[in-house]
Amino acid sequence: MTNLKEVITKLKNFRDERDWKQFHNSKDLALAISIEASELLELFLWKDNEDIDHEKMKKELADIFSFALLLADKHNLDIEKIILDKIEENSKKYPIDKAKGTAKKYTDL
Amino acid sequence: MTNLKEVITKLKNFRDERDWKQFHNSKDLALAISIEASELLELFLWKDNEDIDHEKMKKELADIFSFALLLADKHNLDIEKIILDKIEENSKKYPIDKAKGTAKKYTDL
Amino acid sequence: MTNLKEVITKLKNFRDERDWKQFHNSKDLALAISIEASELLELFLWKDNEDIDHEKMKKELADIFSFALLLADKHNLDIEKIILDKIEENSKKYPIDKAKGTAKKYTDL
Amino acid sequence: MTNLKEVITKLKNFRDERDWKQFHNSKDLALAISIEASELLELFLWKDNEDIDHEKMKKELADIFSFALLLADKHNLDIEKIILDKIEENSKKYPIDKAKGTAKKYTDL
Repeated sequence: MTNLKEVITKLKNFRDERDWKQFHNSKDLALAISIEASELLELFLWKDNEDIDHEKMKKELADIFSFALLLADKHNLDIEKIILDKIEENSKKYPIDKAKGTAKKYTDL
Repeated sequence: MTNLKEVITKLKNFRDERDWKQFHNSKDLALAISIEASELLELFLWKDNEDIDHEKMKKELADIFSFALLLADKHNLDIEKIILDKIEENSKKYPIDKAKGTAKKYTDL
Repeated sequence: MTNLKEVITKLKNFRDERDWKQFHNSKDLALAISIEASELLELFLWKDNEDIDHEKMKKELADIFSFALLLADKHNLDIEKIILDKIEENSKKYPIDKAKGTAKKYTDL
Repeated sequence: MTNLKEVITKLKNFRDERDWKQFHNSKDLALAISIEASELLELFLWKDNEDIDHEKMKKELADIFSFALLLADKHNLDIEKIILDKIEENSKKYPIDKAKGTAKKYTDL
């Protein structure tokens, strides 16, 4: 089984074989993530919530993860740690008793 | 050490404790990813490529990963596998001899 | 010379000849604007600030304006008025003496 | 009645009083449009298609138009003309007999 660290290594190998590190500044990596997220979004345009082309969805999700992993790696971030830290922060912003069953933003709770 | 599977479990626990699964249809999860990606992008607006607030960047990246993981989990996708598949596909779209050192899109190579 | 009202009429004619009004709910129009904005953004990916393909930029800007005009028209909004109202609001959020020469967000002024 | 040209003048006055032209390179203006489009999108997150906060929608639409007008003005583009040109192009990509009543992308028609 492949784990996340090996996947990141493969992403960096792909990048370095093409000498692309020179383009991967933090701002453009953020642009890339946003552009790929928008391509995922386009799969749902004018469509119902679950009317999905699964093959295309996989590819767009993979692109989002790839650029997000490269940006995180560039800044030596531990993915698992930053997510867990954010869950903890969100637990305070969205206490269960106030947030349960509502989609309101924390600023409106 | 926490691994990705445990992180996904924690994300789902956070969601389920708040009864939020009802809101997490695929289309809105794609919206959420795109919105979080744009919040990351905003950190770079009017700024130089590496002029970064690291603490904010960590949080926005965590949000992007969180919604992307939830969408992937909803469709039983193996993150590592879809990324590796996409690297393989991209290897054909961007052959090293043509793509090396250029930021051109594969359609323009 | 064509004015904005005539342009909006032509946009609606184009839409209605194709029987597309049925797809143009407010949420999907917002998605369309965001997707087109991202296609504009993609023209700048991995590039310098003014390294632009002018012909492509025109087309992406036209798409953004088109969907934004259709959403505004759907809600009977007067474009000029909402922009002027926003300028007035921003004048208070960004008073000249505090905002001059800085790109900081109003929350950080 | 205010027309679009006067509105653009007011937008530029607002910008110049704050000495913000220095930040408004084409790439960052494109970022700004995309970020504002995403803020519009956020109004619809986890919500039904027409479940709208009209006041917030007006403001986000105004922001999108403002940055799009500033980018167009920076490149001396005539808004009405680029939209009409795009309608003409789209008329060929989406011929009525093929496109009527379907939300398919022209590449799938």
